[in-house]
Amino acid sequence: MRTINVCLSPELTHLYDLSDKTVVVVDILRATSCMTTAFAHGIAAIRPVANLEECRELKVQGYITSGERNGEKVEGFDKGNSPFEYMGGEMKGNKIAFTTTNGTQAIEKSKSARELLIGSFLNLSAVVNHLKASSNSAIILCAGWKGRVNLEDTLFAGAVIDALKSNFETPDDAELIALQLYQHTKDNMIEFLGQSSHVKRLNRLKIHKDIAFCLTPDQYDVLPRLVGGELITK
Amino acid sequence: MRTINVCLSPELTHLYDLSDKTVVVVDILRATSCMTTAFAHGIAAIRPVANLEECRELKVQGYITSGERNGEKVEGFDKGNSPFEYMGGEMKGNKIAFTTTNGTQAIEKSKSARELLIGSFLNLSAVVNHLKASSNSAIILCAGWKGRVNLEDTLFAGAVIDALKSNFETPDDAELIALQLYQHTKDNMIEFLGQSSHVKRLNRLKIHKDIAFCLTPDQYDVLPRLVGGELITK
Repeated sequence: MRTINVCLSPELTHLYDLSDKTVVVVDILRATSCMTTAFAHGIAAIRPVANLEECRELKVQGYITSGERNGEKVEGFDKGNSPFEYMGGEMKGNKIAFTTTNGTQAIEKSKSARELLIGSFLNLSAVVNHLKASSNSAIILCAGWKGRVNLEDTLFAGAVIDALKSNFETPDDAELIALQLYQHTKDNMIEFLGQSSHVKRLNRLKIHKDIAFCLTPDQYDVLPRLVGGELITK
Repeated sequence: MRTINVCLSPELTHLYDLSDKTVVVVDILRATSCMTTAFAHGIAAIRPVANLEECRELKVQGYITSGERNGEKVEGFDKGNSPFEYMGGEMKGNKIAFTTTNGTQAIEKSKSARELLIGSFLNLSAVVNHLKASSNSAIILCAGWKGRVNLEDTLFAGAVIDALKSNFETPDDAELIALQLYQHTKDNMIEFLGQSSHVKRLNRLKIHKDIAFCLTPDQYDVLPRLVGGELITK
């Protein structure tokens, strides 16, 4: 039977052999939610970039620059880290160079995967349906916060395990922890997340609307995947 | 206010500054449960040792050799990894050289701590009361399984957070995850742990009696701490 693992932090990826697996990278607040939204609104490709300098260099080549550091937009960048910035459709057909505190680092650490996908609540069913149809074993890689485990990515992992538990074996305990957390909080996720370290940090930045949106399942039927260093959906 | 963190795997210790903190090392199944039991029955000291060879060398110096690899007793060692092996009192006043798959490695990784304690359900109140009385911030370090997060150590961390949440701040989300897990499963921990990867592995080794004992709070009022490379209680 295929297996599905939950890796609760990018600092634990070395414990897994990714080479024969589908890795779903998750950074709910807010990188992978933004990426999903951007593709749903016609972006052609997103290049995940580890540092700010590389993003700026890509701007010269015509890329839109997006990203944040410590939850805030980077000075001089075109776009920040709110999904609402990616809805206009005015970027249709363009490419984005995207760097974030945690999300793009998680992608960097899982480049050895057989297949790398971008997951968020916004495209939950697209992720789940793809994993069901694939013959690969899978790993949900939570981006976390600077290496530490976070609630929102663990909750998403739990939602995926909940949907796939009859199709996949769950070899380790991280899957059970994520599943249990999701099952006990899914009916009041926004309230539960109000306790989280990330929401406490972001409270200062007034992004409650973003958080509510990022926790809403199945807004978009897109599934970004990494091909040749860039995320695409085609 | 003092803080208390939960570090869910020894592979995440580098994210924390341990030098000004009390670190409680936890390996419920079964290293720290055995250590607690051994001290309650009169052992003078335990030297945590990373490898089998070093254990064998200490035997020549009069140490009792204890430990396991992959959940099973090591050939030629005096004692294995069941707390019931440490109850007889015949080892009273002796020293043990102890090596295990996860527990002793977790101790090794936290030697920079201001204070290093051994925690288990068996001495839960001793741990909690000490942390309450101390002015140090604290970290509960879960030994996990070969770097991966496990249920039983996370449950213990949740029990400590539950007891201390009005005395300490909990800065990160791992504390909330452990607390939520403990609060929802504390009344049927043995049944819940039946799903865990560790219990599935150990089922083969018939240690259900060990597991039930290792989940029983407050059997012993001892608090092992590391002093000069050895655990003592005096």
